Amino acid sequence: MDKNKHVDQDQKSEIREYHTPSSGFFFKAKKNLYSKKSYYQNIELIENETFGKILLLDGLVQTTDRDEFYYHEMMVHPACTVHPSPLELLIIGGGDGGVLREVLKYPIRSVHLVEIDAEVIAVSKKYFPWMREVLKDDRATLVINDGANFVENTNLKFDIVFVDSSEPVGPSASLHEKLFYEMLKKRLQPEGIIIAQVASPFFHSGFIQKKMTFFRELFRFPSLYLGPVPTYPGGCWCYAFLSEQIHPFDIKRGPPPGLKYYNPDIHKAAFALPHNLNF
Amino acid sequence: MDKNKHVDQDQKSEIREYHTPSSGFFFKAKKNLYSKKSYYQNIELIENETFGKILLLDGLVQTTDRDEFYYHEMMVHPACTVHPSPLELLIIGGGDGGVLREVLKYPIRSVHLVEIDAEVIAVSKKYFPWMREVLKDDRATLVINDGANFVENTNLKFDIVFVDSSEPVGPSASLHEKLFYEMLKKRLQPEGIIIAQVASPFFHSGFIQKKMTFFRELFRFPSLYLGPVPTYPGGCWCYAFLSEQIHPFDIKRGPPPGLKYYNPDIHKAAFALPHNLNF
Repeated sequence: MDKNKHVDQDQKSEIREYHTPSSGFFFKAKKNLYSKKSYYQNIELIENETFGKILLLDGLVQTTDRDEFYYHEMMVHPACTVHPSPLELLIIGGGDGGVLREVLKYPIRSVHLVEIDAEVIAVSKKYFPWMREVLKDDRATLVINDGANFVENTNLKFDIVFVDSSEPVGPSASLHEKLFYEMLKKRLQPEGIIIAQVASPFFHSGFIQKKMTFFRELFRFPSLYLGPVPTYPGGCWCYAFLSEQIHPFDIKRGPPPGLKYYNPDIHKAAFALPHNLNF
Repeated sequence: MDKNKHVDQDQKSEIREYHTPSSGFFFKAKKNLYSKKSYYQNIELIENETFGKILLLDGLVQTTDRDEFYYHEMMVHPACTVHPSPLELLIIGGGDGGVLREVLKYPIRSVHLVEIDAEVIAVSKKYFPWMREVLKDDRATLVINDGANFVENTNLKFDIVFVDSSEPVGPSASLHEKLFYEMLKKRLQPEGIIIAQVASPFFHSGFIQKKMTFFRELFRFPSLYLGPVPTYPGGCWCYAFLSEQIHPFDIKRGPPPGLKYYNPDIHKAAFALPHNLNF
């Protein structure tokens, strides 16, 4: 029996991400690097000619080598440039390490990364070089736990919390609920900021409206902002900036050098919203 | 012989747009409405569950029912809101009628639409209801001609010119050259503005840089601006605003009512550029 041949036939030559039942992306797989069903979700990692390594959870693209900077820079720098003194940080999810890499560019004191799925950490350490670096940083603490469970039971308080969850189905479902944000608010310092990835403004504006309704009930400055992510559905992504005291335009410092997308012009521009997000 | 069966087998159940040789979009075809090789290009029109009717030229998505407003609003309103008196307009390309529809919302005097391919006009009239309406407007003149040829030979002068070309391969190739913009500049009134669709800032930043180099040689105010288009490669598109006298932030009037994307906040935000476009 030709074992190699068997393996080749087993492996997909192409990954599809369905954005709707009738449309989506295709990515040809130069190599299938990893495919495993963890306790929580289906984890796949392929090598693609254009995008380099692509990590998918339950069939949805999370991170690619070529375009991850858009998402990770826009998750981190709008908050880290406006908070008066970002020292104690928390990342919920974010097992690919991209948000962690960006926050470590600031002189913070500590950051906890709370990821539910140890397999996501393992695969990211193996395939994303930055992940190996950032986990060596003394300021970073890795916690394998459910984000909602961690937030409910910790006594720590944070200056900035990043909710870098996956989609509102699967293991991240509870991270999209009002109850989670109520608990999270209790763990924020008075000048604290929460940044959350929300959804596609094109495909999921109804979902965004639903979240904005409870963001508005809970926070004095609930703002949405936008940025491109070529490999996310619709190519543009919506984020939430949630705070009691800090206005998102009150920029305190410049970003670290060497960024590829974020700059102060982009910061302000990102908060300009089209009609379908002006709820 | 079962004729219907033969037709079904001939028709594609899915259209793919390759953004690179290893990635792109797929769209399932609920119906294949039109497929013809004209003298200039391959024209396809399918019906998709999510996007409605999708028009493709040489395999590249030009217009879909569901998201065309992003592109057409961002082609038209940044110029029509800043020009002091937009009366005589020219559209090069734009055979789907979307730009024409948007400019007719202003009290203009006349607009010429110069499309090289009569088949594109015919298919758009058949499948895009707005196209039938706008061609009935007394202010609109349809010219079937090569855009470069029209511009070289006309004596008319224009307040705003929209270069709504297809890609820089095929029948639109000459519309992406410096020579074309030199000719076009001679057809502009002193306060005139040219708006051109350029490319994807993610996939084609080298191409954009090349165009910006000659835009800068030819025009005093050459600016790039950005907007989302979910069904274009990378989900975000780059446009050029070219003028001798008019600054793109000098807004003279509000946009017409009923737009879905453009508003004055979006106008200014669209000109904020990431590092890879700050040449």
